[in-house]
Order: sequence, then C-alpha cells, then structure tokens
Amino acid sequence: MLTVKAYAAPSATEALVPTTLTRRDVGPHDVLIDIKFAGICHSDIHTVRGDWGPQSFPLTPGHEIAGIVVEIGSAVTRHAVGDRVGVGCMVNSCGECTHCQAGEEQYCLAGNTGTYGAVDRDGTITQGGYATHVVVTESFVVTIPDGLALDVAAPLLCAGITTYSPLRHWGAGPGKKVAIVGMGGLGHMGVKLAAAMGADVTVLSQTLSKRDDGLKFGAHRYYATSDPETFTELAGSFDLIVSTISAEVDINAYLRLLAVNGTLVLVGAPPEALPVQAFSLIPARRSFAGSTIGGIRETQEMLDFCAEHGLGAEIEVISAEQINDAYERVLASDVRYRFVIDTATL
Amino acid sequence: MLTVKAYAAPSATEALVPTTLTRRDVGPHDVLIDIKFAGICHSDIHTVRGDWGPQSFPLTPGHEIAGIVVEIGSAVTRHAVGDRVGVGCMVNSCGECTHCQAGEEQYCLAGNTGTYGAVDRDGTITQGGYATHVVVTESFVVTIPDGLALDVAAPLLCAGITTYSPLRHWGAGPGKKVAIVGMGGLGHMGVKLAAAMGADVTVLSQTLSKRDDGLKFGAHRYYATSDPETFTELAGSFDLIVSTISAEVDINAYLRLLAVNGTLVLVGAPPEALPVQAFSLIPARRSFAGSTIGGIRETQEMLDFCAEHGLGAEIEVISAEQINDAYERVLASDVRYRFVIDTATL
Repeated sequence: MLTVKAYAAPSATEALVPTTLTRRDVGPHDVLIDIKFAGICHSDIHTVRGDWGPQSFPLTPGHEIAGIVVEIGSAVTRHAVGDRVGVGCMVNSCGECTHCQAGEEQYCLAGNTGTYGAVDRDGTITQGGYATHVVVTESFVVTIPDGLALDVAAPLLCAGITTYSPLRHWGAGPGKKVAIVGMGGLGHMGVKLAAAMGADVTVLSQTLSKRDDGLKFGAHRYYATSDPETFTELAGSFDLIVSTISAEVDINAYLRLLAVNGTLVLVGAPPEALPVQAFSLIPARRSFAGSTIGGIRETQEMLDFCAEHGLGAEIEVISAEQINDAYERVLASDVRYRFVIDTATL
Repeated sequence: MLTVKAYAAPSATEALVPTTLTRRDVGPHDVLIDIKFAGICHSDIHTVRGDWGPQSFPLTPGHEIAGIVVEIGSAVTRHAVGDRVGVGCMVNSCGECTHCQAGEEQYCLAGNTGTYGAVDRDGTITQGGYATHVVVTESFVVTIPDGLALDVAAPLLCAGITTYSPLRHWGAGPGKKVAIVGMGGLGHMGVKLAAAMGADVTVLSQTLSKRDDGLKFGAHRYYATSDPETFTELAGSFDLIVSTISAEVDINAYLRLLAVNGTLVLVGAPPEALPVQAFSLIPARRSFAGSTIGGIRETQEMLDFCAEHGLGAEIEVISAEQINDAYERVLASDVRYRFVIDTATL
C-alpha cells in the first residue's frame, strides 16, 4: 500500500483539510498514476456536502484527473510508464452486461464504480483525485494525446465527456441547430464541442455577461434567459438542447424552444422534479431526455477530438489551500470556467 | 352546398342532438364521402365539453370516418366513385413546410386543420364525422383496403394511427420490449399493432379485468398498475412504453420501467403537468416523449398493415340516439373497446 498526500472533507459540514490516504498495491491490471492536475466539478461539492445522500467520511473528491503513469502491473498492455493519462468519473464496472460489452460502462447494469465515494470491489471506499497519486485498473485509464496540456485536459474527463456524449448521441453536426443552456464548466465545453462538430450553436445563459466568451468559444448566437423575449423569438427552433444547469427552470418554456422531433437533454440535475406538460411534447414529437458522462471508448474519442481541434477547458489553476475558497466561488458561479488543482501544492 | 344529417353539441354543457349541417360544394380536388361509420374518440368528449379550450358551437365531432366515395372533383386522381375510404384527424395542412413536404402533415408548422372545430381555409369551422356525408380534399382521404370492414376500420383513423406512428418511429419490432399503458380504445390497438410488428408486448393496465382480451390481442404479459409490485418487478425492462392514458400518474415510476436508452411516449394527454425527476432520466439515458397521430402516408401504411395482418378495432356499433349514453360509458371506461356510430341511423 502506498500512502499519498491528499485533501479530504472530514464530514458533510466541514471544510476540506490536508490529509493522507492509502492507495492499494499495483495489481497485475493496475496502473499507478502520478496525478498532476485535478479539476473541481460542481458535483464534488454536492457529494461532499451530502446533497446527493449520505457519504462515508473522510472523503477525497475529484474525478477530473490528469497525470503520468509511474508504475504498471505485470499484465498491463494499454499503458506504459511515462504515458500521459486521465481518469474520469468511473474506475470500474461489471464488464459483462450488455452496456459494458457495448463500451458504455456509464450505463453498467450492475452500476459502475465511481471514482470517489463508491464501494470498490475490495470493500473499501474509493477516494478521488485531490491527491498526489491514484491506482486504477488500466481499462478505466484513458490516454491524453500529445498536444493537449494536462491542466486543460483534466476537466475534459467529466465536463468534456458529459457534453460530448449527448452531442454525439443526438447527432450534433452540420445542419443541426444546437442550444447549450448554461455557460459554466460543462456549458463552455458544450459550446466548444458543438461548434467543433459543425453545429449551429446558440448559448442560452441567464445573462449576457459571458457573451464575448461564448462567441469566442464558437457560439453563433447568445441569448439571455432572463429576457422573456428570448423564449418567444426562439420558439420551435432547436434540434437539440443540452441543459447543463442544476437550477430550477420552467422546463416547458425550454421544451417549446425545440423544433419538431427535437430533444432536450439534461446533463445537469435540478434537485426538484420538473413539471412537464404533455402538450409541450405531443404536438411536435419532442423528447425530454437525460444523459450521464460517456463510456471509456467515447471518452478516448472525445480526448482525441479535442486534441485534433485544439480544444481544452478554460481553467484557473489553484493551489490546494485554495480548494475551499474555490468551492464557494463555484457555488457563486464565479469561475471562468473550471478550477484545476495543481497537485504539486498538496 | 349539400345539407346533410348530423349530430351536434349545441354547447359545452348540453347533450348532442340531431341536426343538419352544410357541406361545401365538391371542388376540383375534393371528394364527397358517404359516411358509413364514425368512431367515438375520448377526445371528441374533451373537445365538445370545452376541456381543451373554448369551441365554436354547434359542433359536430368525429374524426374516425369510414365510408364510400360518391362524387369526385374534376381534378381528383387518387380516388374514384365507389372507393372505400377513410378520413382521420386532419383535413388539410399548409402543404409547403418541411414537415408537410416530408409527409408528416400532423406536424405542419402552420398547424394542420382538424377534422372538426378548426378554422377551414374558407373561414368556416370544420364539422366532423357524426354525419351522413363529408367533403374532403383528396390528399387527406386514405384508402381502406379490401378485407378491412368499414366499421372496424373507422377507429384505426385515430386510435390506430396514434399508436402505430410512435411504435414505428421508436422501432417496435422483433427483439424490442414494448409496454402499452392503458387498455382502452388506443391501448387495445397499441397491443395488436405492437404484437403484429413482432415486439415483445406487455400491457400495463390499472387492473387485470381485461387480461384475457389483452393476451388474445397478442400481449405476452399483462400487469396491474394498481399493484406496487409491478413497478419493482418490471424496473428497467422496456425499450419503449406507449402511454395511452390521460389520467394523472406517477410518471417517475413509469420512467424507471425503461431500460437504458428507452423511451416513454405519451399519446394520451394528462391535463396536469407531470413532475419528472432528473434522475429518472439521466442515469440510463432515458427519454420522455410525445407523439400525435401520424401523417397521411403513414396512415395509409397503417391501414395496409392492418389489412395484411387481419387487424381491426374491437368495436360496439351503436345508433345515433345512443351517442350521449356512449359518451358516459367512455368516461366510465365501460367500452370494449371503441364505440362506432352506424350513420345510417342519423
């Protein structure tokens, strides 16, 4: 076992503190990663604060991990020492169900194993990426292509794949009108990815404060959802809407922005149920859907796509001692667009 | 102009009464149909009682029309005198938008013209099929194939196509697990059609009272939704659920019956908004959708499919004077499975 430096939440009500945690010995199929950068995802905050249910503490969050392979198990074939690699939201799955076999481990029928706060197969609780090292089964480790810096790649492991997967699944591309709701960590990647896929991209954000950024990231149009006129002007116009926000919204107003056969996909999860009127869907064969991250194969595809198109996340690199302040700033939407922890500061 | 016998609602609060109404002269592209049978759809009742908004009265409902062509306009090419034909929920559309051009007139961007209670292009209010005759543009008249009796064909024009279209659109067929919610006019056709398409069909009905019928119509399994065990046992099992009911339901319980990538389609419209939890959709990439009737080309395809597979609606033929009683029985779910008016009794 390896003892490594980390930051952890001692409880749901306390700030994160410096600590150490142990990583398992490198098994035949494992790789040991020297973590260089770890992104801060809004869901880290939800989880450690118990918003999504009780947790086992102390808990080290972090599922946007980028680093270098420093040791490999005897049977490892996919990665070698020195490789630039990433780990996202999952570190394991059953490997046998239809979805695992199809490479969509995020929909594993037995439930995939989350990178932190989940019960691992040895019965321990997984601990995430706010740490100097992590040991992960090689099949859940992806390659970060040359030309993609590790710091801007880290957030792609969650924010990138979570928007890439629904954009691909629902066919974003040339001739498709796509709206991205929200210009946060997920939303700004949604804009970059949809634009790079060739779609006609509109941002729907609460205000116009990030308009210049949105257009720079590739959006063709940018509207404020605080302006009721937006919902009149854009009614019936989108083939696909990807909503990255977790705030409560008038979901029927958004559904009515869809064209016939259009789909609105939630990747952000509002805590309250969203009351959907039947007539927001029926008269135009609209769909209201949800999507979560992406499979390992698709995550690799997304990283390759980002490298090819020169896309990375917009980040603010912080030191470990800034983590708690960063959490407050994420909650206040005061980040453009993702905090990334330099783990050398742990 | 032709004066014809009909039944009409004088107001939203009065019973339907015998009356006469006028049909326009047969124009170059029109056909005059001698109506033989007209089905009673639950939406007839919603409409004449003002549940879906104010109406122009007197109003003759009826959008499940089967009859014989008795006169054609000078430019008519699709139909000839003596043809067995049907008219469903639409009698016109713009003909020019993307959806009309694609043969999906039900999603006409200008709004299609309903068979009754809609403003026709001459400014008059359309009047439906509880009448001896109707004049309709030939392109909204479909052919009822030989071998399909007119009485059992009438309900196919709404109940048939409304279930056929989503079953086709979402790929019901061999290897697909399909559930039909509700065993009324729409539901019983949904069961017959899905089974004929080769899908594995389950009925979800409030009780088991119609179980024998369901199995006879081709269902492989039949569950009572009043039994909470149903929702446990069937969790995550369907690729497609078509919900024909307009009663309020716990929509999240139904969404959780969907497998990964599954879709629940509303064809019945509950009046109250349905509160959807984000986590009913996100973890399994589920979709919640709506669908309305089908295009003219697809309606013809459905009739041909029914003739080929020997499928018709299960009906109870009534005389005109029984219409008001029939309405009460529809509201009490006391019909197996569709009332059809013999218009010779008008």
